[in-house]
Amino acid sequence: MELKERILVKAEALFWKFGTRSITMDDISRDIGISKKTLYQHFTDKDDIVYQVILYRLDKNRENVNCRMATAHDPIEEILLASEIMRQYLAEMNPALFIDIQRHYPRAWEVCTEFKEKFLLESIRTNLKKGIEQELYRSEIDVEIMARLRVELMRVAFDTDVFPRALTGMIEVQIQLLHHFVRGILTEKGLLIYNQYVQKHQNNPAITTL
Amino acid sequence: MELKERILVKAEALFWKFGTRSITMDDISRDIGISKKTLYQHFTDKDDIVYQVILYRLDKNRENVNCRMATAHDPIEEILLASEIMRQYLAEMNPALFIDIQRHYPRAWEVCTEFKEKFLLESIRTNLKKGIEQELYRSEIDVEIMARLRVELMRVAFDTDVFPRALTGMIEVQIQLLHHFVRGILTEKGLLIYNQYVQKHQNNPAITTL
Repeated sequence: MELKERILVKAEALFWKFGTRSITMDDISRDIGISKKTLYQHFTDKDDIVYQVILYRLDKNRENVNCRMATAHDPIEEILLASEIMRQYLAEMNPALFIDIQRHYPRAWEVCTEFKEKFLLESIRTNLKKGIEQELYRSEIDVEIMARLRVELMRVAFDTDVFPRALTGMIEVQIQLLHHFVRGILTEKGLLIYNQYVQKHQNNPAITTL
Repeated sequence: MELKERILVKAEALFWKFGTRSITMDDISRDIGISKKTLYQHFTDKDDIVYQVILYRLDKNRENVNCRMATAHDPIEEILLASEIMRQYLAEMNPALFIDIQRHYPRAWEVCTEFKEKFLLESIRTNLKKGIEQELYRSEIDVEIMARLRVELMRVAFDTDVFPRALTGMIEVQIQLLHHFVRGILTEKGLLIYNQYVQKHQNNPAITTL
């Protein structure tokens, strides 16, 4: 791993643990064991590090989701696998960090928004269109509305105003929303294939439950 | 209609049209053609009017939804009819007024929250439980999660950050979300009955589309 990537990985870990605001350029260089001068050779300031950490992380996520989806045999398996991997990412994330970024790092936040709007939304649109073509999803569904619903559901699942933790387990919410979403768009032919996947992935509770 | 009710109806119309903040006790009494003294005999101040308008409106809504639901033959027809009536209410409402109430009239806002939490959520829970008992809804669904999802979807449908008006028509969003929700919870037996309703209510686009 080259130095720049090593800095990004370490800085990300510090941000997850302590938030972006309390971490200084000093903290980062000390933690990695490099001089501040070296750190500034790669990054202009902390804003730049936050921005590049987010860019790096979302690039990795995009790559992983694409890899995982490429192993799928059809749009139904694709949506199940991709949702599972996105679910894992979101579960690992610190919501406080997101709020910090949204408030104080507009450039980094723009990257997050772009990830959602361009990558997530577009992947789901493509998936829905393929599913309709293959008669696995109902032709009556509105691709734009359903794609936006799915992205919003990823957010809603973490919204404790909607799903208070005391009443509903977070993973259970994710799983219920995913399977409810998929079932809602399936044709009869799609339902048969969906049921096969639920059986096949029996060792993966996120896919098999329901 | 007794005077107090007449005041509530008129005040509500003024609030819809001009918002709560710009309307004074003078405006209300002038509009109804009564003295300010008479107005103050029924309401202590504008806060009190806003509070009682909301109380009155939500009581009426609750009554109408219950009446409509009582005509349903089974949980599926019930959820279709109730959603249609709620959709109509929400469509008529001025979102700006809601934001005003949330910010400036805590007592009235509490009534709104209670309506959502106690009446809406509880009606949906009851509907889901009945549907599961009658084997129209899948027994694997988590009643608490699905009830909360349905209430949240009513809000989301109006959220232009999620569904920009330029891309998606509002009524189309409502209809898609309702039918997608219902389809996602149905058993095979439920699906047969659902399809019959979609045919039966052919003159009602909100129920038949999809």
